[in-house]
Amino acid sequence: MFAATAATIVSGAVAERIKLSSFMIFTVLYVTLIYPWAGSWKWGGGWLDARGFYDFAGSTLVHSVGGWAALAGAIMLGARRGKYVAGRIRALPGHNMPLAAIGVFLLWLGWFGFNGGSVLSADPGATSLTLMTTCIAAAAGGLGAMYTSWIVSKKPDLSMGLNGILAGLVSITAGADLMGLHSALLIGPIAGVIVYFSVVFFDRIRVDDPVGAISVHLVCGIWGTLAVGLFGSKAGVAQLINQIVGIVAYGVVCAIAAFVFFGMIKAVMGLRVSEEEEVEGLDQGEHGMPAYSDFVASGSVR
Amino acid sequence: MFAATAATIVSGAVAERIKLSSFMIFTVLYVTLIYPWAGSWKWGGGWLDARGFYDFAGSTLVHSVGGWAALAGAIMLGARRGKYVAGRIRALPGHNMPLAAIGVFLLWLGWFGFNGGSVLSADPGATSLTLMTTCIAAAAGGLGAMYTSWIVSKKPDLSMGLNGILAGLVSITAGADLMGLHSALLIGPIAGVIVYFSVVFFDRIRVDDPVGAISVHLVCGIWGTLAVGLFGSKAGVAQLINQIVGIVAYGVVCAIAAFVFFGMIKAVMGLRVSEEEEVEGLDQGEHGMPAYSDFVASGSVR
Amino acid sequence: MFAATAATIVSGAVAERIKLSSFMIFTVLYVTLIYPWAGSWKWGGGWLDARGFYDFAGSTLVHSVGGWAALAGAIMLGARRGKYVAGRIRALPGHNMPLAAIGVFLLWLGWFGFNGGSVLSADPGATSLTLMTTCIAAAAGGLGAMYTSWIVSKKPDLSMGLNGILAGLVSITAGADLMGLHSALLIGPIAGVIVYFSVVFFDRIRVDDPVGAISVHLVCGIWGTLAVGLFGSKAGVAQLINQIVGIVAYGVVCAIAAFVFFGMIKAVMGLRVSEEEEVEGLDQGEHGMPAYSDFVASGSVR
Repeated sequence: MFAATAATIVSGAVAERIKLSSFMIFTVLYVTLIYPWAGSWKWGGGWLDARGFYDFAGSTLVHSVGGWAALAGAIMLGARRGKYVAGRIRALPGHNMPLAAIGVFLLWLGWFGFNGGSVLSADPGATSLTLMTTCIAAAAGGLGAMYTSWIVSKKPDLSMGLNGILAGLVSITAGADLMGLHSALLIGPIAGVIVYFSVVFFDRIRVDDPVGAISVHLVCGIWGTLAVGLFGSKAGVAQLINQIVGIVAYGVVCAIAAFVFFGMIKAVMGLRVSEEEEVEGLDQGEHGMPAYSDFVASGSVR
Repeated sequence: MFAATAATIVSGAVAERIKLSSFMIFTVLYVTLIYPWAGSWKWGGGWLDARGFYDFAGSTLVHSVGGWAALAGAIMLGARRGKYVAGRIRALPGHNMPLAAIGVFLLWLGWFGFNGGSVLSADPGATSLTLMTTCIAAAAGGLGAMYTSWIVSKKPDLSMGLNGILAGLVSITAGADLMGLHSALLIGPIAGVIVYFSVVFFDRIRVDDPVGAISVHLVCGIWGTLAVGLFGSKAGVAQLINQIVGIVAYGVVCAIAAFVFFGMIKAVMGLRVSEEEEVEGLDQGEHGMPAYSDFVASGSVR
Repeated sequence: MFAATAATIVSGAVAERIKLSSFMIFTVLYVTLIYPWAGSWKWGGGWLDARGFYDFAGSTLVHSVGGWAALAGAIMLGARRGKYVAGRIRALPGHNMPLAAIGVFLLWLGWFGFNGGSVLSADPGATSLTLMTTCIAAAAGGLGAMYTSWIVSKKPDLSMGLNGILAGLVSITAGADLMGLHSALLIGPIAGVIVYFSVVFFDRIRVDDPVGAISVHLVCGIWGTLAVGLFGSKAGVAQLINQIVGIVAYGVVCAIAAFVFFGMIKAVMGLRVSEEEEVEGLDQGEHGMPAYSDFVASGSVR
């Protein structure tokens, strides 16, 4: 299930322009060849585990592993048509924000299983602590991103608030069992601030990530992994170094593998749908059916 | 989590016209200053607890506490533009009823955690009873409201049915651990009938509550609290008097506090968005993004 | 809860044309008179249980029981206007496929309770196995249907993929506690293939089932019940014969009862809404409110 989660992270960053077939082949290669091997370094009792690297439920092993592939995919695909035009960044807003909000709330609920289940026992104390730190980081992360957007861009952007919730969840995941509630109350909002500026940054360097998956999962995955060395019961310089070693090791292997796999697929069969299909929408082009058949679309040309 | 739930209740009654900033300030004041103090009367072992007032999971302590603030907010804000025009009540129907239905079903699911978790142990018998009474009251409450609207207004109104489910859930919450299944089968439908007429009543007196939050949470919260004195293992005149004392005590304190807080915020910074913003929609005005960017809205002027 | 589930299955097959009142009367008759009696043959320790028929969580007792009624309802009602015109089959695509996807994911989550709870104990080994076989059959069923539609009709149809997930879930339900993971990995995809061709088949014979409920619940319910005789710890010719006896017994009783009940209701009060109401939509006609009040519908005449 953790491997599947890592794969789904990629889908957000490559959305609205990747061929479904190419995405599925990438997923199979990445999850079959890279995830089990790299995962074994820590969760299989491998060299990073022996060294003291800590990642409770996968800020690095799930979220950064997926995040590096999301970054590679977004770069290899290029931006959506109409995203960067004449030197300007155009917002391509989500078509159904209430549905996005429900999706984030369902992810929040699912995280209680993800982190809570990673205790690997029904121990009431450890499970309760993990659920509390997870929930606090999520709520505080959402507020952190919302207030940042409120201050910087004058409005509490809904999509930023939602990404802040996810950022808080990703960032607490590495140490959800180690943190006191006050640590969770710091880790989450910092993730919320980070995710705001990270989304702006990737837009500036013209890496088009429709849902902010790179910022949420890669950048905040790194932050959450570092946080184990800065907060909670394992904090310390030695632990921080171990965390950095793990972050770098996963980064090098995952980024290289993801670029190689996406590059191979691009060379053999292409990654990107045709211009016509992108304009029409991938619901029609890839799946043969409209997402919303009885509604009139505004039909804005991208 | 219970305090947060009380605060969210308010949001429904003030929707589509309150400034987000004003709402958030109210929430912080109300949840920080009133909820813990008033909650301690019962759940902190205070004077109402000593007196014998009973509220298992918060028909009063959560739902009425939130409901009084919802009533105060709706009155202080006034109605949405176009709701009461030339002496007539205009329906402003929800824009996405399937999403509303999913929301109610998710609340129903969440209630199993809310009431089931309030057993505060994993005792199979007490937990199972609580889950059963909760589920039966929800289902029967939905039927009660649906049939009431079918009889009175000739159609089984979907939004009434959904509010009936919530009404059943709110009303069983005070005594979910005390009731037999037949009691739940009476408490729920009565709540469904109450919520229908309550929604009609608040519309008649020109209190505009877009989702019926006052009827669901305040009125049915009162009903559920009374039901502890009428049904189940604590039923009796002495208990009924204790329940009434609790209802009145919370009502006086919460209503006064909510009116004072909303009044202070109104005086200092205003409660309501501008006319232009209300017509355009608060998705644009408050959050800076359209809720449904690719759809054509019917654009009916309110 | 299982009886309610059986009843909801019918709703999909009769959608967009049945009168709500007629549907509710059918539901009460079928769930009150048939479900408890037929269910007792197996889960009440009756003659099928004595004979060795096995159905862990209801591939037959829930899904086929509902599926037979779905078939009877679809036949008795006839097709939706515009579905079969001048000898041709017209697709009437779902109006909100993202919502359909969320619905299927919520069903998937709920199935963990349905099958996991049917272990009737908190035994970690048996519960874990059941959750695993359930999840694997769901995922593999979705892939099976998606690839089948990709091969046969050139596109990985989203609604087929979603139905494949449900087909996998229905088909593992009879033996979720008996199967090894490899068996689940075969039962699910076979269900996915079956559901694709079954949907095509019922369209060919002009049985209009808007969501494919007959194919998912009846046909794959039969398949899952047979699978207990073909895979897992009870597999064998004797068991297979027992399974067939059970399938036939439920089929005869449920089909006859469903046709009789729908026929009685049709004779007394009619089953189908008026032509005008069907064209306008049952949200308006039956519930008195538009499902999506602020959106412009494409208004395609059916």
